[in-house]
Amino acid sequence: MKVLVLTGMPGSGKTEAVKVAEEMGIPIHRMGDMVREMVRAKGFELNRANLASVANSERKRLGPDIWAKRTVRVISRSPIVVIDGSRSQAEVDYFRHELGTSLLVLAVHSSPWTRWQRISKRHREDDPRTFAELRERDGQELKWGLGDIIATADMMLLNESSKGHLRGQMRHLLLDIGSPSPAGGQADAGRMPLAGGTPGPAGEDRPAKTPGNETTFTEVNEK
Amino acid sequence: MKVLVLTGMPGSGKTEAVKVAEEMGIPIHRMGDMVREMVRAKGFELNRANLASVANSERKRLGPDIWAKRTVRVISRSPIVVIDGSRSQAEVDYFRHELGTSLLVLAVHSSPWTRWQRISKRHREDDPRTFAELRERDGQELKWGLGDIIATADMMLLNESSKGHLRGQMRHLLLDIGSPSPAGGQADAGRMPLAGGTPGPAGEDRPAKTPGNETTFTEVNEK
Repeated sequence: MKVLVLTGMPGSGKTEAVKVAEEMGIPIHRMGDMVREMVRAKGFELNRANLASVANSERKRLGPDIWAKRTVRVISRSPIVVIDGSRSQAEVDYFRHELGTSLLVLAVHSSPWTRWQRISKRHREDDPRTFAELRERDGQELKWGLGDIIATADMMLLNESSKGHLRGQMRHLLLDIGSPSPAGGQADAGRMPLAGGTPGPAGEDRPAKTPGNETTFTEVNEK
Repeated sequence: MKVLVLTGMPGSGKTEAVKVAEEMGIPIHRMGDMVREMVRAKGFELNRANLASVANSERKRLGPDIWAKRTVRVISRSPIVVIDGSRSQAEVDYFRHELGTSLLVLAVHSSPWTRWQRISKRHREDDPRTFAELRERDGQELKWGLGDIIATADMMLLNESSKGHLRGQMRHLLLDIGSPSPAGGQADAGRMPLAGGTPGPAGEDRPAKTPGNETTFTEVNEK
């Protein structure tokens, strides 16, 4: 089993990459959906401010990795699973602790200028309206450690040109991860992936989890 | 004129990329060399601890961007210049403020596992000795904002395979940046680079500097 944590700056093309996985029948866990559900359950209006407020008050109440804990508890059993929306180092650390070498962090990167060109075309209400504002918003996004996750990603997709090019790369990568490993138990160590980044170490400091102890996914207790 | 700030995690292949630029006759400014000179001038032994101590005491005394200020003051006049060794957001912010759209941040990315395989082979005395130690060291490197620089890089080279492949990409990128722009003054905006990332915006919020005001490079006063 491989759990892909997908990350990237706003406008990098992360959503499109998730779509490709979804179309291939891969289960997607959107961390934002859990927050959205909670906002709804509390009877609040679904807007940016309420989402951030609920997400952060839960982090303060139960720890910075609370959304990661909740995600791991409901994770699907499937050869590949995608987790979308992780933005803090604490979350990735928790995923790594629980999932060991099953975890792969995949970052989608586009230059700020390319992201700005995309964002300025999509006309979303709460998007930045100038390039300077995008830089400012980037600074806010990076506060939680998003930059550190990207800088230490196991795999990276560059998305500077067309949607089709990104989709091709993503499909290729998922097929590569999903293909049976020639070495059996040693999984992916030393194997060259197609899209940059080796799919994680096998053994060394953290032994890969075997199917036998995968039940730990459901044994996580809050707090 | 384009000023390339080269960045990347330890073991990503940054040094090799700088070598390619050097072989092509491009002036290189190594920020570490300035620190080294100061350590020597003070009569201290040249080791990791003294380098860090001198670099940081200067940052505390004169601001987090002091090494960037000193670099800009001695920067070469050349169509392309490479600055090696920037590790903090304060430095990149200063470079961007001074150089405007002449500044391009280029990150070299390799997965942690690939970096570990390289580092474990090079047998440098102060390198991490296990993969877990590399993760720990990464955490230290990221403290100054290196992750934020990488996540918002204008260009990215993926370096997961051979030295030759990286060298080819780097050469290609430098030739592309150095080639005369078809649009004249509007420089590189909208032009698709070869290695991912558009070479920076022209105009928009920060107008590109013209040759006429490039003298600001030498007019920077400390403090």
